[in-house]
Amino acid sequence: MIITVSRQFGSGGREVGKRLADELGLTYYDKELVTEIAEHTDLNEGYVNSVLENGGFHNYAFTFGRSMPFVSATPAPVTDVLVAQQKIIKAIAKKGNCLIVGRSADVILKDMHPFRIFVYADNASKIARCRARAPENEHFTDKQMLKQFKEIDGGRRKLHELLGIHRWGDRAGYDLMMNTTNIDIKSVIPALAEYIRNAMKQ
Amino acid sequence: MIITVSRQFGSGGREVGKRLADELGLTYYDKELVTEIAEHTDLNEGYVNSVLENGGFHNYAFTFGRSMPFVSATPAPVTDVLVAQQKIIKAIAKKGNCLIVGRSADVILKDMHPFRIFVYADNASKIARCRARAPENEHFTDKQMLKQFKEIDGGRRKLHELLGIHRWGDRAGYDLMMNTTNIDIKSVIPALAEYIRNAMKQ
Repeated sequence: MIITVSRQFGSGGREVGKRLADELGLTYYDKELVTEIAEHTDLNEGYVNSVLENGGFHNYAFTFGRSMPFVSATPAPVTDVLVAQQKIIKAIAKKGNCLIVGRSADVILKDMHPFRIFVYADNASKIARCRARAPENEHFTDKQMLKQFKEIDGGRRKLHELLGIHRWGDRAGYDLMMNTTNIDIKSVIPALAEYIRNAMKQ
Repeated sequence: MIITVSRQFGSGGREVGKRLADELGLTYYDKELVTEIAEHTDLNEGYVNSVLENGGFHNYAFTFGRSMPFVSATPAPVTDVLVAQQKIIKAIAKKGNCLIVGRSADVILKDMHPFRIFVYADNASKIARCRARAPENEHFTDKQMLKQFKEIDGGRRKLHELLGIHRWGDRAGYDLMMNTTNIDIKSVIPALAEYIRNAMKQ
């Protein structure tokens, strides 16, 4: 069983992924992939992360939800990172029973028919989630946050479109799209796991 | 509990709705609404149906999945039908515990916060589903079927946009979007029901 979780920034996609992996006994990959790719390419983790998120062109003010500092990038090894990403994600998937959050795993693994989830939420809900997780000394206005959401998701969108057929967030590229606005993620995980188990039997 | 099911033509949305209503003990509304509206407005059921599906402007060659013959329309009472639809759908929802397929119930009932599902599938899967349900003497090519899908869903889209904020099929307007390609609908219904029960607790 291979599951991929794509997500809007702030929608709780990582929480969905982590809890779902636990529920189904799958190995969970998120930042672990960045570390593996960095080791594989001898590049800085912050740089690898920025390439995988947005092609290496942006340095975000946002730190919450991401623990890796950004280090100034030279554009040259962008393709090295993307090639390493493909190799590593395919190698992980071959071992089976894994859940991968982000990193374009849905398109990289399309021939292996993963169950592809897209997690999203409305702006008010994403802002509330980010505020709840932000460090105490971080104070962004709603407007600043929305601008950053747009930039971060825009980076994901671009990279996805480089690799995939469908647009990022286009329902045609997913098996289930889950709106986390006003729901308690934890409470729906057992049912979500059961849905996927049955859907993948076909 | 109020659930609305919007669906692409041929995606099995009606099957999802029927089975889900059974599983959750909800009253199911689909064609029943057309009958009620026709009685309320003294209009022909075929005409009411065509207004609710596409604004009354089209007469489809497709008959499968729809048992009501189309009768020539005068454009005048279109708004009568739409006003009656809103009244009847709101009255039904006030009684509670119902599941409504189509008929823009998701937008008409937005203030009552229904759980809004969108059901979709890829073209190959929709063609196969329609062929399996078609009368023996009906023979459409794939191309003819795809053209009709586009027209029927286009009608739903237009009517939805007349009433709603979000575009028809835009994830922002739904709580869960379900791709039925390659899944056995029946097998996922109990998990889907459980997901909704927990999501609606919030």
